[in-house]
Amino acid sequence: FDRAKDKIMMGAERRSLVMSEEERKLTAYHESGHAVVGLLVPEHDPVYKVTIIPRGRALGVTMFLPEEDRYSLSKQRLMSQMKSLFGGRIAEEVVFGPACVTTGAANDIERATEIARNMVTKWGLSDRLGPLTYSEDDGEIFLGRSVTRHKQLSDMTAHVIDEEVRQLVDNCYSEAKKILEKNMKKLHLMADALIKYETIDEAQIKDIMEGRDPQPPEDWEDSDSGGEPESAEEGSEKKATTPLGGPAGQH
Amino acid sequence: FDRAKDKIMMGAERRSLVMSEEERKLTAYHESGHAVVGLLVPEHDPVYKVTIIPRGRALGVTMFLPEEDRYSLSKQRLMSQMKSLFGGRIAEEVVFGPACVTTGAANDIERATEIARNMVTKWGLSDRLGPLTYSEDDGEIFLGRSVTRHKQLSDMTAHVIDEEVRQLVDNCYSEAKKILEKNMKKLHLMADALIKYETIDEAQIKDIMEGRDPQPPEDWEDSDSGGEPESAEEGSEKKATTPLGGPAGQH
Amino acid sequence: FDRAKDKIMMGAERRSLVMSEEERKLTAYHESGHAVVGLLVPEHDPVYKVTIIPRGRALGVTMFLPEEDRYSLSKQRLMSQMKSLFGGRIAEEVVFGPACVTTGAANDIERATEIARNMVTKWGLSDRLGPLTYSEDDGEIFLGRSVTRHKQLSDMTAHVIDEEVRQLVDNCYSEAKKILEKNMKKLHLMADALIKYETIDEAQIKDIMEGRDPQPPEDWEDSDSGGEPESAEEGSEKKATTPLGGPAGQH
Amino acid sequence: FDRAKDKIMMGAERRSLVMSEEERKLTAYHESGHAVVGLLVPEHDPVYKVTIIPRGRALGVTMFLPEEDRYSLSKQRLMSQMKSLFGGRIAEEVVFGPACVTTGAANDIERATEIARNMVTKWGLSDRLGPLTYSEDDGEIFLGRSVTRHKQLSDMTAHVIDEEVRQLVDNCYSEAKKILEKNMKKLHLMADALIKYETIDEAQIKDIMEGRDPQPPEDWEDSDSGGEPESAEEGSEKKATTPLGGPAGQH
Amino acid sequence: FDRAKDKIMMGAERRSLVMSEEERKLTAYHESGHAVVGLLVPEHDPVYKVTIIPRGRALGVTMFLPEEDRYSLSKQRLMSQMKSLFGGRIAEEVVFGPACVTTGAANDIERATEIARNMVTKWGLSDRLGPLTYSEDDGEIFLGRSVTRHKQLSDMTAHVIDEEVRQLVDNCYSEAKKILEKNMKKLHLMADALIKYETIDEAQIKDIMEGRDPQPPEDWEDSDSGGEPESAEEGSEKKATTPLGGPAGQH
Amino acid sequence: FDRAKDKIMMGAERRSLVMSEEERKLTAYHESGHAVVGLLVPEHDPVYKVTIIPRGRALGVTMFLPEEDRYSLSKQRLMSQMKSLFGGRIAEEVVFGPACVTTGAANDIERATEIARNMVTKWGLSDRLGPLTYSEDDGEIFLGRSVTRHKQLSDMTAHVIDEEVRQLVDNCYSEAKKILEKNMKKLHLMADALIKYETIDEAQIKDIMEGRDPQPPEDWEDSDSGGEPESAEEGSEKKATTPLGGPAGQH
Repeated sequence: FDRAKDKIMMGAERRSLVMSEEERKLTAYHESGHAVVGLLVPEHDPVYKVTIIPRGRALGVTMFLPEEDRYSLSKQRLMSQMKSLFGGRIAEEVVFGPACVTTGAANDIERATEIARNMVTKWGLSDRLGPLTYSEDDGEIFLGRSVTRHKQLSDMTAHVIDEEVRQLVDNCYSEAKKILEKNMKKLHLMADALIKYETIDEAQIKDIMEGRDPQPPEDWEDSDSGGEPESAEEGSEKKATTPLGGPAGQH
Repeated sequence: FDRAKDKIMMGAERRSLVMSEEERKLTAYHESGHAVVGLLVPEHDPVYKVTIIPRGRALGVTMFLPEEDRYSLSKQRLMSQMKSLFGGRIAEEVVFGPACVTTGAANDIERATEIARNMVTKWGLSDRLGPLTYSEDDGEIFLGRSVTRHKQLSDMTAHVIDEEVRQLVDNCYSEAKKILEKNMKKLHLMADALIKYETIDEAQIKDIMEGRDPQPPEDWEDSDSGGEPESAEEGSEKKATTPLGGPAGQH
Repeated sequence: FDRAKDKIMMGAERRSLVMSEEERKLTAYHESGHAVVGLLVPEHDPVYKVTIIPRGRALGVTMFLPEEDRYSLSKQRLMSQMKSLFGGRIAEEVVFGPACVTTGAANDIERATEIARNMVTKWGLSDRLGPLTYSEDDGEIFLGRSVTRHKQLSDMTAHVIDEEVRQLVDNCYSEAKKILEKNMKKLHLMADALIKYETIDEAQIKDIMEGRDPQPPEDWEDSDSGGEPESAEEGSEKKATTPLGGPAGQH
Repeated sequence: FDRAKDKIMMGAERRSLVMSEEERKLTAYHESGHAVVGLLVPEHDPVYKVTIIPRGRALGVTMFLPEEDRYSLSKQRLMSQMKSLFGGRIAEEVVFGPACVTTGAANDIERATEIARNMVTKWGLSDRLGPLTYSEDDGEIFLGRSVTRHKQLSDMTAHVIDEEVRQLVDNCYSEAKKILEKNMKKLHLMADALIKYETIDEAQIKDIMEGRDPQPPEDWEDSDSGGEPESAEEGSEKKATTPLGGPAGQH
Repeated sequence: FDRAKDKIMMGAERRSLVMSEEERKLTAYHESGHAVVGLLVPEHDPVYKVTIIPRGRALGVTMFLPEEDRYSLSKQRLMSQMKSLFGGRIAEEVVFGPACVTTGAANDIERATEIARNMVTKWGLSDRLGPLTYSEDDGEIFLGRSVTRHKQLSDMTAHVIDEEVRQLVDNCYSEAKKILEKNMKKLHLMADALIKYETIDEAQIKDIMEGRDPQPPEDWEDSDSGGEPESAEEGSEKKATTPLGGPAGQH
Repeated sequence: FDRAKDKIMMGAERRSLVMSEEERKLTAYHESGHAVVGLLVPEHDPVYKVTIIPRGRALGVTMFLPEEDRYSLSKQRLMSQMKSLFGGRIAEEVVFGPACVTTGAANDIERATEIARNMVTKWGLSDRLGPLTYSEDDGEIFLGRSVTRHKQLSDMTAHVIDEEVRQLVDNCYSEAKKILEKNMKKLHLMADALIKYETIDEAQIKDIMEGRDPQPPEDWEDSDSGGEPESAEEGSEKKATTPLGGPAGQH
């Protein structure tokens, strides 16, 4: 009964939005891709819910639960985050083929690129570029006006940054692909469950990751009623991270 | 009797605008090029109307009907869209020769380039550039002021992006050209019908695509009257996508 | 008796502006260059008046009459336009020699360059650059502020654009030069007529293009009076395009 | 009893912020890295306090005491400052391994890069670039508006600057790493003390640097009470420099 | 008695400004350089007055008289203008030696560069760059705001422009130098006259250019009085061009 | 008794600012470096006072007296100015060694670079770049807004400018170094005098430059009193140029 909390965190559900069967299936695999990879990489926050009920601009959501507040992130954790971000696109690719891959991963790609770029240019996490800041933010607000502080990087340095960012992304992408290819059964199980139940919980996720058909969710009976009181606010200690978005609308 | 709806979607007809015979013919072939290609590529929304009555700045319009709302677009669908966009210019080229090609395709070219560029830089749909965002939007509004977030791409990366965008465009252009060259009869049939009737509907389009001379449109008798009441608002479920523009005025 | 209309279109005549004999001669050849080339290239609007009476910033004007409204322009028509634009400078060059060429062609050169650049970067009319938009306008007004949408073209692409624009310009320039060199007699006839009559009409133009000394213009008697009533507003169907400017003042 | 002063200088302690054991250990080693390197490089201000009680955005703080006001900084002093800034990241690396290195050093890296860049481009402290200003600030406020004074450096010059900045950083980083590797015992002693006492003072620091287990701090008894009056304002002559930040929150 | 007119055109004389003997001599040669070259190049406006009385920021002024209004400028005239602009610096160089050359030519150099750059990029007067506009003005005011219309020239094109501008400048400079070296006697005569009389007129200039010691100027008697009424406003038909500035104050 | 005038020109003395012995010595040598070089290069304004009493942000000041107003500066004079600017840094280097060189020369370096850059890009004083303006100021205020007039220099031109500026700076630096190395005795004498008296005058400077120990300054008795009336305003004809700054505070 986490609906009230979910609503606040992810925007109201958009049940009125009618997806085609084809799109529901694609969304189910996209979200399962995020979730399965996220569950199998080290130092990743645990997944506690996956849904293909559209919320806001997203067609589906995979929710992660941070076990504790974190103030700094290790290199490994950042790589794992990139891998689960790519899980959605990779699931589309391995299940439907390269030509059917969609624009739905645009936001995932943007976030993964941002992480990789920051690793290289701000966090000193690339051996090739070393522990330096390669200043890319050159807008600074001064007295309500932006004062450009342009540190002119040479084109060669910019090129090495581009190469290194690409390298990091490609590594994470291919490792995430290997993970999904080795765990196709789990991917299919989860996508099927999502198509059937729309939303799955920790219990179902656990079943799936152990290779079993999941049990129906607790609230499965009234999943279509929509009229249950949204009173439940029982102080869950859980705190959701920013959920990974599913395929967004047309860009 | 879709006039009222069309008017809202496409701007009022500009019957006062007098086109020369030469321009009417060119426009008829331009629109037929869009339509014939759009009808023959996979995953493309169906064409339900083609007209050479000028509307707004466009000299003619080809209208597509999306079968369902779409929230993400597959790579194949995007390629098909680019092909039908190029259909207009290609029809001019194959029918009238390269020297007679006009500026009327400027908007089509801009839209196709935009799609190709986004495929490469935002949607991760180019193998050569990989699943990365190559940030090109560097204006961000912050407190009513733009804050430049300049991610300095190297010149070499920019060059590879240019090459890949060109490659995508050239592929779509040459495939669309092959389609039209194989379907010259349909192109001529449709252009002739447009010159004769000004506007053709799904029924005529069907006739043409099956290689037959089309029947006159339903409202053919009063097509010149202009005085028929524009009351018809009968709740059509049809939803038109942004129509492909015909040759626009001089730029 | 098109004076009232001309005044509106081209600004009031500036008879007070005293040109030296030398400058009158140069202006006469400059305008004759525009006119002769414009009359001999294909798909060009017909010339209906040439004058060396200064109007606004221009020392002389060549007026073209579009036969019909045009909404799109063919590649050939654009090339012809560039050729007549270069006609002025070329006439200076072939008659007075390269060292006597003046800054008076600055505006013609700017307009021809603009056409060539648009052909290459906006209208998809260059085989070498293909049917792509090479976005050069990166200022867009958003809520009263400009939002930069910088599409970073690589330097190599920019270089190919430069080369292709140069190629187009050089082709038009040398073809226009050939035309003038083959029609020197017409050039001299027209320049002489302009020096004598200041303004020539369709009748005189026709005489000159057929190699004959032109008749004096209809209103030749009162050409110096300046006091004739400017009542004439008789609904001429003629619509003048933007006139080609003569040599402007010092830049 | 320097609490009141510390509070003003470093922001209020954030005891409510609950760190995991793992993060406390990481923070302890990070701060110890700063402190141990800072204590062993020449011309460095003496460390007088190290803490892993979060303050502001920082998870821990190492405080240095300048012996006197300084108006100009020698090259050697700047190099030492860079070395102690890198001490935090290096401690993470040598103790937990390269994959566990965190984003917590982002601010240290930015400050060290800034020093290195200024040495090369403003202070004339690089033999390779010589005693020249390589103007990088091109925003200047003039009458409340920024007037860009763009001194266009060539790409080759920008590249040499990039290389030289990298060289300076790499030298300092590897020298700081050698220092920590030779002083692992002190690093462990200090980190253990921080985990135990949260804050250590000059006395404990002295013990540790002499290779002994430190005595408990003076105020150790009431370190958990939190209720002691913050009256103490006894005019210490000490002046703290900007403290080196510990690992900051997630960026 | 052109004082009133001169005052309006050139700013009030600054007799209070005390120049050293050395600077007066340098200024005399600088202005004589402008004048002698200007008098010996083709198509140059005639010099009618030279003075070393400081006016505004200029230490001396050479005044040219345009014989008639001009609306377009020939290539030759522009080259002559550049040559007389360089005359000042060259006179310093040939008389006092390269090490004694001053910053006083900064404004002359800026104007000559501007002419050369416009010849190449706006006026189509360079064979190497052809009749094209190489758009360098990219600020345009739109609704009170500047809208950047950036036409991205390739670096290679920019380099050819730089080379061609340099070529034009070097040609003019070396031709002007030859002229002065062949006319050293006139240069010395004029400089001596300026040192003696401060201001020389057409009569003196004519004497000098014919190789004779000039007569004293008409108003020589009262040249030091300073108290003569500045009533004279007698409608001279002369119109002075922008005078060539002498060495300006310290930049 | 030039205190009142000095105060106006250089900001009030900051006697409260306590420098360490080490910094006083460094400042004494830095100022002596400026002064000794300035006294030995040709066409340099004479030094009339040197002090290590901090004023404003400067730790010491060397004051030059221009003999007369100057409106244009010769190449030689500019080179001499650069040499005396580098004198401060060079004195630090030759006396204390390269590792002890400080950031105190930052402002000197900026001013020397500015002179060298202007010589090359504005004043036409570099043979390699010729008599051209290489426009670097591209901000112009128009109606209260900046209108960018971007003259796009090619990267190759920018590189040649960088090289030439570097060359000029290196030449001046090494010549100034030679001067100081040949005059070490004078440098030590002056630094010792400054450490002893804090401020020295023309008389002392003369003694030192003739190789003698200087006499104590006239007002030496009351140099520590600080309470003497600052009434003295006796109209000295001396006019000080912008004084050369000593080592500034930490940047």
